[in-house]
Amino acid sequence: MIDDIFRYEDEIKNRIGEKRFQHTLRVKDTAIKLARIYSVDEEKAEIAGFLHDCAKIRDIELLKQKSAEYGLNIEGELEKAPQVIHAYLGSILAQKLYNVCDKDTLNAIKYHTTGRENMSDLEKIIFLADSTEPMRNFEGVDKLRELSVKDLDMAMYYSLNNTIKMLADKNVYIVIDSIKARNFYREMVY
Amino acid sequence: MIDDIFRYEDEIKNRIGEKRFQHTLRVKDTAIKLARIYSVDEEKAEIAGFLHDCAKIRDIELLKQKSAEYGLNIEGELEKAPQVIHAYLGSILAQKLYNVCDKDTLNAIKYHTTGRENMSDLEKIIFLADSTEPMRNFEGVDKLRELSVKDLDMAMYYSLNNTIKMLADKNVYIVIDSIKARNFYREMVY
Repeated sequence: MIDDIFRYEDEIKNRIGEKRFQHTLRVKDTAIKLARIYSVDEEKAEIAGFLHDCAKIRDIELLKQKSAEYGLNIEGELEKAPQVIHAYLGSILAQKLYNVCDKDTLNAIKYHTTGRENMSDLEKIIFLADSTEPMRNFEGVDKLRELSVKDLDMAMYYSLNNTIKMLADKNVYIVIDSIKARNFYREMVY
Repeated sequence: MIDDIFRYEDEIKNRIGEKRFQHTLRVKDTAIKLARIYSVDEEKAEIAGFLHDCAKIRDIELLKQKSAEYGLNIEGELEKAPQVIHAYLGSILAQKLYNVCDKDTLNAIKYHTTGRENMSDLEKIIFLADSTEPMRNFEGVDKLRELSVKDLDMAMYYSLNNTIKMLADKNVYIVIDSIKARNFYREMVY
């Protein structure tokens, strides 16, 4: 299975660019480490990490075109929060182009940007690996790294709550799933 | 109509206490001023302002008991954000005890704490009068006062966005209606 996935390396690199591709490799490695800590299937973490940004097409028009091609409706929230499109589309490409059948892996790709209520451990791991891979650098990243190896739910809350503050500061759209997730993990840890 | 409402002054004062009652009078006056600016029915603004906190019972057990008595279901979000209960209950009391029939006035009472998408001008005025009455004192209140007499939608966005940041900072539950309202007014002003 793993071999199957990695033969798409060039195709994915061409779609998302070298820099973004290097990020996906770091997310994959971080996800494997977290999977080990939390006794989550490492192969699933590896695949989900490797594929999480497989649809991160920089050109927004191309991204929309690809979404249409694969039947992803981007009206509603995805139109207001276009930074989420690649995650939803990535989940579709993982299934249709790279033959990933495992629902948990597909959901980990789909929700790696917004989060959602009641995530599986694999979903949390991909969400957190994306934010904590070694080259990430933002205020609070060290605390998030610390939390992510100690307590997935606490790390989820910390990450989501900070993201919401950041989105409010920047006056950009806040996806409802993210608030529901933030409230959900708040309840888990408080 | 106005005379009818004011004869409940003592009843309301007894329910919510002198200090809170003085706040409702200031909100009423602020609401009348805003109604004048935005050509909104001043009598409705006066009634909604006067009654907006008519159910603000400080004792949480008593508040829950009163909610049950008037058939207000406080499971779900109201349980997680008990500071909202008084607004929903207030709208019910306004109708059942104080004979307010006007739907817009009842909604202005109901949504004065959370806000919601697509509010009427009266709803916005009560929401903003509650935050900007002369004794209110918090970071940003002067800017909010300024905005509230210039542009209701801009004031709504500023207020909701700041509230969300504050709730995130305090790690408390964020009501979904407030995020939807914040996103809605963001779109109106950006």
